[in-house]
Amino acid sequence: MGKISSVSPFAPVALARLPAIEGVAFATAEAGIRYKGRPDLLLAVLDKGTSVAGVFTQSKTASAPVLACRKNLKKGKARALVVNSGNANAFTGKKGREAVEMTIAHAAEAVGCKPNEVFVASTGVIGEPLDAGKFVRLLPGLAKRAEPDAFEKAARAIMTTDTYPKLATRKALIEGTEVTINGFCKGAGMIAPDMATMLCFIFTDAAISADVLQALVAEHTETTFNCMTVDGDTSTSDTCLVFATGDAARRGQKSITNAKTNKLKDFSAALEDLMRDLAIQVAKDGEGLSKFVTFEVEGAKSWRAARAIARACANSPILKTAIAGEDPNWGRVVMAVGKSGEAADRDKLAIWFGPHCVARDGERAPDYNEKTVAAYMKNRELVIRINVGVGKASATVWTCDLTHDYVSINADYRS
Amino acid sequence: MGKISSVSPFAPVALARLPAIEGVAFATAEAGIRYKGRPDLLLAVLDKGTSVAGVFTQSKTASAPVLACRKNLKKGKARALVVNSGNANAFTGKKGREAVEMTIAHAAEAVGCKPNEVFVASTGVIGEPLDAGKFVRLLPGLAKRAEPDAFEKAARAIMTTDTYPKLATRKALIEGTEVTINGFCKGAGMIAPDMATMLCFIFTDAAISADVLQALVAEHTETTFNCMTVDGDTSTSDTCLVFATGDAARRGQKSITNAKTNKLKDFSAALEDLMRDLAIQVAKDGEGLSKFVTFEVEGAKSWRAARAIARACANSPILKTAIAGEDPNWGRVVMAVGKSGEAADRDKLAIWFGPHCVARDGERAPDYNEKTVAAYMKNRELVIRINVGVGKASATVWTCDLTHDYVSINADYRS
Repeated sequence: MGKISSVSPFAPVALARLPAIEGVAFATAEAGIRYKGRPDLLLAVLDKGTSVAGVFTQSKTASAPVLACRKNLKKGKARALVVNSGNANAFTGKKGREAVEMTIAHAAEAVGCKPNEVFVASTGVIGEPLDAGKFVRLLPGLAKRAEPDAFEKAARAIMTTDTYPKLATRKALIEGTEVTINGFCKGAGMIAPDMATMLCFIFTDAAISADVLQALVAEHTETTFNCMTVDGDTSTSDTCLVFATGDAARRGQKSITNAKTNKLKDFSAALEDLMRDLAIQVAKDGEGLSKFVTFEVEGAKSWRAARAIARACANSPILKTAIAGEDPNWGRVVMAVGKSGEAADRDKLAIWFGPHCVARDGERAPDYNEKTVAAYMKNRELVIRINVGVGKASATVWTCDLTHDYVSINADYRS
Repeated sequence: MGKISSVSPFAPVALARLPAIEGVAFATAEAGIRYKGRPDLLLAVLDKGTSVAGVFTQSKTASAPVLACRKNLKKGKARALVVNSGNANAFTGKKGREAVEMTIAHAAEAVGCKPNEVFVASTGVIGEPLDAGKFVRLLPGLAKRAEPDAFEKAARAIMTTDTYPKLATRKALIEGTEVTINGFCKGAGMIAPDMATMLCFIFTDAAISADVLQALVAEHTETTFNCMTVDGDTSTSDTCLVFATGDAARRGQKSITNAKTNKLKDFSAALEDLMRDLAIQVAKDGEGLSKFVTFEVEGAKSWRAARAIARACANSPILKTAIAGEDPNWGRVVMAVGKSGEAADRDKLAIWFGPHCVARDGERAPDYNEKTVAAYMKNRELVIRINVGVGKASATVWTCDLTHDYVSINADYRS
């Protein structure tokens, strides 16, 4: 089984270079929360007037920071974001809530804002009390030395066992004014040695009200992060926050306060594209992966049904291990389609591995050539397309294979 | 990672000895469907008047034999059962239906019954046309030499890559008359090299009408087979059939035609107990397992909610790999509870690994001792108990861990 590779084979050759965004500054520190000798604390300082929106884990055991963010989102205003890695502050009871309150109070003082303008996220071990006393004293210093051109540094500070930072940037026009959208995120489901999280932070200088931002991020999460899976295990801490400083208003952009306006078309498309880019980067850093797999389901009754079928494939251990073994085992695709519970016409079902049709009309394709398809399976990036023959809707889900390294990372390590 | 062990560590030291049941006879043959030098064809011949009931996979891509059984069950009468291993006859289109029809026609002729009194099941590779011509010529000979005392032989003929045959027997009283219930089954979700199936066949000499039998098997499937999982992957062929020959009537047992009667209490309990026994035997032969794990969820809103939470734990790759690594990673239990989507009170949640309380009142137990719990994890059989603190319902789910051998069995093998 060999040594676990220290970097995903899909790590980008060059990281995306993110330009500074007016009204956003970062500072990081080595607080020693769990890791030694690496940054594990991030403070983002945001201009007055920054609006904020977010989506969070659906988990019934959501972490203390998630609960605090949900509460503060009601106001829709943000001046600071504090993220720590090494400890998820999840399942930590009263102590967890106190740690969040302490962090928020100190950050508010350091930045000079109200407590409900501070957002927090934590990632790392679950159930271990987070000693906020360890790092809150660092916040005033961080606030002072926060700098705009520090997205990569920020992305690195929130990594746990990610093998590379995930960064993306886009430009968009709002009524002729160019705005920038930058985002970074960490995680891929659950990362050894402990539960980890999908954390994503997006920043833009666009002037957009919080409710409009909320509509956009909620819509695009469905087709991006919610179409990505490593092992199907939903964390307690999943967080995606979008901050809009509004500084583009100084360059003439009129603030957008209506989600239905056509003026947002370009921005909305760029935001979705950026979120998809980050989602794919997360799947490409999935634990122990050797292959990146795209499931394209078409001919379904609805988009939700198509996504449910694609997810059933992407979360099937038996199919994911076959892919790791470069076995074009389309029988397991049939199984996954069937177990999804969504409508599919067994007698019209068709399956392609890359360009090769392996099954159609509910049985093995007459011209199926095992050797050709087996050769296709040796590719690092695979596309498996499925037509379920009952409708016109389609959806795409990104995932990775299930390898010996996944087991090693999660089983052989003893914390 | 070592060599994959050829037999599950949980294989019984001695197989259960099943007594003959009046009205039930078996014969097996080596038909060479896929395997060489081992029996792969089973014919069960049943007395006139045998009633039958069954439950099947919920898969939307159910196999051709499953569809035929569903159809024939409407009559509720059985005279023959034909099972082959090596080919699942699933996703085989028109050819699949023809193979089933051919098998049923030949079996009906060999046994001297109507086609709708014949039941069929197939297990093995998916999507490969089943050449029924290969074995139907053997059926007349099998019908002639069928013998009653052959349960173990029958159980062995339907194995695919099971490492041991699963057998169980119980006695029950119906109004003072002793009846016997025998059952055998095969599989554990998906078994390499191809998709396999959970097939279970139960026989009794009790006189019970088909509708009553159907009510019993449907009810008990929920608490037995549907509380067992290896990898969460539902096959296209899952089948559980119960045959009641009614021969106990000759010893004075009055036929039962009312499901609600108290007279069935002992029989119903014995049947459930036998089904649970077989379900646990399947989980204990899970692919590559090193540990057998019981999840007990209590304090839930309903039995269904409790089972959903226990299943979320039992199907979580990240938790199953931690168990394989003997890591008492209860944070992953918290994650699985949260992702189940069922109600749970995070501040009342309590978790036990065996006798050791690791978390209570929504945080790590104050007296938690990592060393003690880590020592417990070295046991081969583990019980993980979870109280979710919102109600009084409880449920139990049986499973196994997710090991390197699971990946090897499913990924390293190329068919």
